[in-house]
Amino acid sequence: MDLTPTARVVELLPKVRAFLEEHAVPLEPDVARLGFSACVARLKEKRELVKRLGLFTPHVHAHDGGVGLTFLEHARLSEALGWSFVGHYLFNCQAPDAGNMELLSRWGSPAQKATFLAPLVRGESRSCFSMTEPDRAGSNPTWLDTTATREGDSYVINGRKWFTTGADGAAFAIVMAVTNPDAPPHLRASQIIVPTDTPGFTLVRNVSVMGHAGSDWDSHSELSYEHVRVPVENRIGDEGAGFLLAQERLGPGRIQHAMRWIGIAERSFDLLCKRAVSRELSPGKPLGTRQMVQDMIAESRAEIDAARLMVLSTAWKIDRDGSHAAREQIAAVKFFAAGVLQRVVDRAIQAHGALGLTDDLPLAMFYRAERAARVYDGPDEVHKAMLAKQILKRYGLVVGRDG
Amino acid sequence: MDLTPTARVVELLPKVRAFLEEHAVPLEPDVARLGFSACVARLKEKRELVKRLGLFTPHVHAHDGGVGLTFLEHARLSEALGWSFVGHYLFNCQAPDAGNMELLSRWGSPAQKATFLAPLVRGESRSCFSMTEPDRAGSNPTWLDTTATREGDSYVINGRKWFTTGADGAAFAIVMAVTNPDAPPHLRASQIIVPTDTPGFTLVRNVSVMGHAGSDWDSHSELSYEHVRVPVENRIGDEGAGFLLAQERLGPGRIQHAMRWIGIAERSFDLLCKRAVSRELSPGKPLGTRQMVQDMIAESRAEIDAARLMVLSTAWKIDRDGSHAAREQIAAVKFFAAGVLQRVVDRAIQAHGALGLTDDLPLAMFYRAERAARVYDGPDEVHKAMLAKQILKRYGLVVGRDG
Amino acid sequence: MDLTPTARVVELLPKVRAFLEEHAVPLEPDVARLGFSACVARLKEKRELVKRLGLFTPHVHAHDGGVGLTFLEHARLSEALGWSFVGHYLFNCQAPDAGNMELLSRWGSPAQKATFLAPLVRGESRSCFSMTEPDRAGSNPTWLDTTATREGDSYVINGRKWFTTGADGAAFAIVMAVTNPDAPPHLRASQIIVPTDTPGFTLVRNVSVMGHAGSDWDSHSELSYEHVRVPVENRIGDEGAGFLLAQERLGPGRIQHAMRWIGIAERSFDLLCKRAVSRELSPGKPLGTRQMVQDMIAESRAEIDAARLMVLSTAWKIDRDGSHAAREQIAAVKFFAAGVLQRVVDRAIQAHGALGLTDDLPLAMFYRAERAARVYDGPDEVHKAMLAKQILKRYGLVVGRDG
Amino acid sequence: MDLTPTARVVELLPKVRAFLEEHAVPLEPDVARLGFSACVARLKEKRELVKRLGLFTPHVHAHDGGVGLTFLEHARLSEALGWSFVGHYLFNCQAPDAGNMELLSRWGSPAQKATFLAPLVRGESRSCFSMTEPDRAGSNPTWLDTTATREGDSYVINGRKWFTTGADGAAFAIVMAVTNPDAPPHLRASQIIVPTDTPGFTLVRNVSVMGHAGSDWDSHSELSYEHVRVPVENRIGDEGAGFLLAQERLGPGRIQHAMRWIGIAERSFDLLCKRAVSRELSPGKPLGTRQMVQDMIAESRAEIDAARLMVLSTAWKIDRDGSHAAREQIAAVKFFAAGVLQRVVDRAIQAHGALGLTDDLPLAMFYRAERAARVYDGPDEVHKAMLAKQILKRYGLVVGRDG
Repeated sequence: MDLTPTARVVELLPKVRAFLEEHAVPLEPDVARLGFSACVARLKEKRELVKRLGLFTPHVHAHDGGVGLTFLEHARLSEALGWSFVGHYLFNCQAPDAGNMELLSRWGSPAQKATFLAPLVRGESRSCFSMTEPDRAGSNPTWLDTTATREGDSYVINGRKWFTTGADGAAFAIVMAVTNPDAPPHLRASQIIVPTDTPGFTLVRNVSVMGHAGSDWDSHSELSYEHVRVPVENRIGDEGAGFLLAQERLGPGRIQHAMRWIGIAERSFDLLCKRAVSRELSPGKPLGTRQMVQDMIAESRAEIDAARLMVLSTAWKIDRDGSHAAREQIAAVKFFAAGVLQRVVDRAIQAHGALGLTDDLPLAMFYRAERAARVYDGPDEVHKAMLAKQILKRYGLVVGRDG
Repeated sequence: MDLTPTARVVELLPKVRAFLEEHAVPLEPDVARLGFSACVARLKEKRELVKRLGLFTPHVHAHDGGVGLTFLEHARLSEALGWSFVGHYLFNCQAPDAGNMELLSRWGSPAQKATFLAPLVRGESRSCFSMTEPDRAGSNPTWLDTTATREGDSYVINGRKWFTTGADGAAFAIVMAVTNPDAPPHLRASQIIVPTDTPGFTLVRNVSVMGHAGSDWDSHSELSYEHVRVPVENRIGDEGAGFLLAQERLGPGRIQHAMRWIGIAERSFDLLCKRAVSRELSPGKPLGTRQMVQDMIAESRAEIDAARLMVLSTAWKIDRDGSHAAREQIAAVKFFAAGVLQRVVDRAIQAHGALGLTDDLPLAMFYRAERAARVYDGPDEVHKAMLAKQILKRYGLVVGRDG
Repeated sequence: MDLTPTARVVELLPKVRAFLEEHAVPLEPDVARLGFSACVARLKEKRELVKRLGLFTPHVHAHDGGVGLTFLEHARLSEALGWSFVGHYLFNCQAPDAGNMELLSRWGSPAQKATFLAPLVRGESRSCFSMTEPDRAGSNPTWLDTTATREGDSYVINGRKWFTTGADGAAFAIVMAVTNPDAPPHLRASQIIVPTDTPGFTLVRNVSVMGHAGSDWDSHSELSYEHVRVPVENRIGDEGAGFLLAQERLGPGRIQHAMRWIGIAERSFDLLCKRAVSRELSPGKPLGTRQMVQDMIAESRAEIDAARLMVLSTAWKIDRDGSHAAREQIAAVKFFAAGVLQRVVDRAIQAHGALGLTDDLPLAMFYRAERAARVYDGPDEVHKAMLAKQILKRYGLVVGRDG
Repeated sequence: MDLTPTARVVELLPKVRAFLEEHAVPLEPDVARLGFSACVARLKEKRELVKRLGLFTPHVHAHDGGVGLTFLEHARLSEALGWSFVGHYLFNCQAPDAGNMELLSRWGSPAQKATFLAPLVRGESRSCFSMTEPDRAGSNPTWLDTTATREGDSYVINGRKWFTTGADGAAFAIVMAVTNPDAPPHLRASQIIVPTDTPGFTLVRNVSVMGHAGSDWDSHSELSYEHVRVPVENRIGDEGAGFLLAQERLGPGRIQHAMRWIGIAERSFDLLCKRAVSRELSPGKPLGTRQMVQDMIAESRAEIDAARLMVLSTAWKIDRDGSHAAREQIAAVKFFAAGVLQRVVDRAIQAHGALGLTDDLPLAMFYRAERAARVYDGPDEVHKAMLAKQILKRYGLVVGRDG
């Protein structure tokens, strides 16, 4: 297991860090205060600078227009980008577009690539991934209410989705819908591309999350599909392959989140340490002289290092063996790193006292926004149960969905 | 230690609960969405109903115009009010007014009572408590930069405060300022009443906290005092008694917060259980069949019960022996109950998945707003160190501020 | 809920504490080093002193020869006795005899009381409770392999039990055995008294637990029943009532353990504090100046106080409403207090460093012996699941054994 | 950072695992039950087999007679050996001999190597490391009472040590004693070799630890040095270099412990999983169907993997940059891995219920013996404080010993 950064990573990381400090961090307060859509124009200017650096869309294969980093290389980059909450957006590897690009790059037809993937890769459009339904547990992706009924050369889609990130302003959605209701559970659904200007597609609302409905890419929408008709060619892969594709898409996606979390955790840790040396409790006695703060620092350092190693080693395994082979590591890193992130951010806030709760620092935003880390792409509980069941299978015990 | 609810508590609790369900809970979504100031008129109408119930300003002595509940009685009421985040406001026992009323009731001069306390008790004005400074650790209230210089019959106040809750719209502030810079640390400051229309008093900004600057009572302001001149009669108690009064004020205040937290925790627990029975993971298999959710429920139940017993027994002790005698229990319950609250809310969110992160439920607001519980009125670390030092003193070891 | 200690408790507690310091604590090192059976003679001498104090067998009704404390009174006493690990034995309220006495006092026939209960109450014999089987989960007491087959006026018992505490030297066992294999699960078993000199009753071994097989009362045996014939009159209560009686016996038993744990936790806490003030890290800088140790002290203080309040309030409820009505509180206090005990002992050891691991202090023994607290009378997991299911039942969801 | 196992590791690991299953695991019950000294003869026979495998003394350089594995290679081997608690002894890389061999290999004079190192490497003698004193905090190795006074060509040593592992039966001790009382604290002590047959050297007792005084290598002794005279040539390295050498010795030593802990954790995990699939709660419903057990499995899997990666990456860094450069990683892995070990063993016990407490499985012994992991070679608290201080130094804050 060789986790040594490659030459190109060694070269690009300092550039990326410098870029973020110069171009991303100064934008953060306005994005946080004014909202994403108010800042899109300025963010797009910065994206042009990233293109000139040759680092735009880093994770997509070169033959599809991206930079073509390996997973392990992208892990290092993604951590660096996580330092700023607009980092991934600026480099065009933000969720859910990153996953959609990978999906289309791997499974899309040539026509789908030309029409939908290419503009994404060039940063000219955005997309969303429309799977979660309000009345169905996300932990059971085989149980969906949304249907796509075949009528001639079309699918007619009906249903309701929510928590569709970035639907506001997206050019198209990739919808997970039941095409084969009588097939075995894992073969019932398909993934279908729906341009957002298709009649019957309605953005009901941007769901207010942790106090903000958000806007543009920084939003999570409730969507309604009423007799939405799209051509059969918009289906990605085989009919009934939706669940399989979702697994293929979400597996690496979870790791990409974890990569980013390490970056957020490192920035929080940096703020924690800066506070420890600058805040005086009495003249000449900064916070860092207190063992309770030293404990926060030491625990955080160890946990972040542990989480990073898990991310890197999992990325290495995905590069070598594919994401299916790495699914136990992916599950472990998903809940482990999400827990580390939550604890590190919490400690950094605590060390800042009242200041940590304010929006004068990014910590309060990390606290609000990243609580979702333990929920999206499957809650901790689902990953733990899955991991345990995979392990127990090797010991000879097969445990079903309901125990 | 008799923790039996008194007859009047037994009588009033069901009324209060019914009132909140009918009048407070329905207002919550608008208060959350539109902001406090947009809803003040409607909230004030509800306050009139509370007055008719005879339960307005429950914690203040009858001779000062309140209902005159004992601490232990108020603990039961306050828990019930905590069910809704506007409960305490509606009953006029919200922080910081509750503490200010107690302070003035106990230490205020007749003139201060007539001018400042009476309108507070009647709910005709609001007040704030202006102690925390941006550049000085709240954990060390003997180290303040704000000064009140005696000039003839006046004090001239200069300094900067922040995190002054409810300053927006308050009629007056109680300011903690150094009047005797050469006295021993604990005798340097005094508490002085400053009407907010005094020249030189400026509300710099409502600090944005967890994504919202808030408004009216629901805000935390940064304040500037520039040559603010007030008569000497506005000082509460003796010169140099500021620290002592702060202890007297904050001790019970911490318990009042803890009482309220139990109510919030119970509401979160109720939502957790409702989710457990209603959300199906597969047909006929609700979330509550899962042991990981059962674990959340059982841990939360035990922790809330433990925290309530600590609150009640501490309130009982304050009633009997005063808050100074109960300061170890107060310290313990402050960090213990704050931790329970954070964990219970976190579990309730986790059990709701994405829905738990949205503002469709109050959980996300509890999560954001109550992170402050581990910070205000002294962070966990300060209370732990204080408690340990008090205990070690009985074993013969005196530990100073810096170890 | 009046938790005030009664007059007789106020009077007896100082006596008990003084007695333990004078007579129990000095015996501890020899009991630990030489084993229980080597010290039985000396322990019995001390028991005579307890009889003279009028405090022998405190928990049994006066009409059956005990002192007749209420549950709440016994909770206070039991905590005091927990200070020394021979405390309960000296006062003749040690498990499993305490529970067996309660069982016989409540459900025993006059003949059973005369033959079996009376000598127990007088401290002239010991007994054991033989329920757990090596091949059957203790968490499912309805699933047992041991059978008691009716043959005329006798039961013939066959089976294997283990973890039968105090079987070594006991005069009789109360055995849980299936008498009605075709009845519904909860009505299959009965409890039957088996004198240990009955042919076919064999003590296979004292199971080595945490490094020691132990002896006499301080042991946990594996037992074999081969065609053990006892008269039908030895059955306690109705045929098929075994499970019900077990619940009635174990419910209060769990609380009695929790009472004792508070005492152990307090003693560990006392050692922790003594260490904090006496161990110097550098000249003039004892351990207690370190915040990491202050954190141990503060967390332990809060947790022990919380656990005690839960024990007392549960005891109060049992006195008022019976143990069945209090079964949720009992479940909560069982896992909550066991967890507190484990953490407090662990912290006390950590603060002592290498010394904490040695047998020069009782901490290492608490650490070893009380790991069982989270296992016996039902593991944490069983109590949590039971508690959650009871709560969810009130929300309308009935969850079966297997989810 | 290339963590790929080298070819020789790939080759030797399966051999080692097979050897342990065949030769070590079957010996464990007797070693546990009869004590180490009763089994030394049989253990020595097995050591001969290891020599034939060419794997004896794996960590020592080839030119000093060992196998000469790199640190990273040894990390893999040591984990494998940790599977059995006699593994390291059989391969002659047990503490404290392993560290003493490294010390002498690196710093010993040719004469010291010939007289003391060579027999150790060949497994013909044992040694001990005599640093900890009963009245001085192990966390402050600059504060010692034991003195070595120069008299002509000799040192005369006086003092008292304890927790000297393996002194019982050792050929010599390496003693840490003050030779230069007036030097700065870190330059006061030296390390001196004392043959155990030197007059004045007395083994006072094998300290009873967690219920057992132990014997031979498996013991921790209290030692008395009264006018113990040894030649000056027995000093290792320069006078006053004792502290420096201790750091050099203990740094890698901590990692070697952590390597071993991973092995113990893996064995506990294996027992946990085996239990989960074999223990039925009701017919056809094994423990592994329960989510609370799945949670134990998933958490343990993630934590062990994280700890292993930290161990491997630290070993890699020591190989490349030396242990001084890796001291922050060493501190982090010391407390992180010790915590993982304790939690994994605890979970495995919990899943076994009463059986987990018995000596029928090795878990109860891991639980007792490895509680020391969070204490020896510096308690968690010392490593956390050290790590935090090193980090804060880079942020510009220098924190002294006492804050």
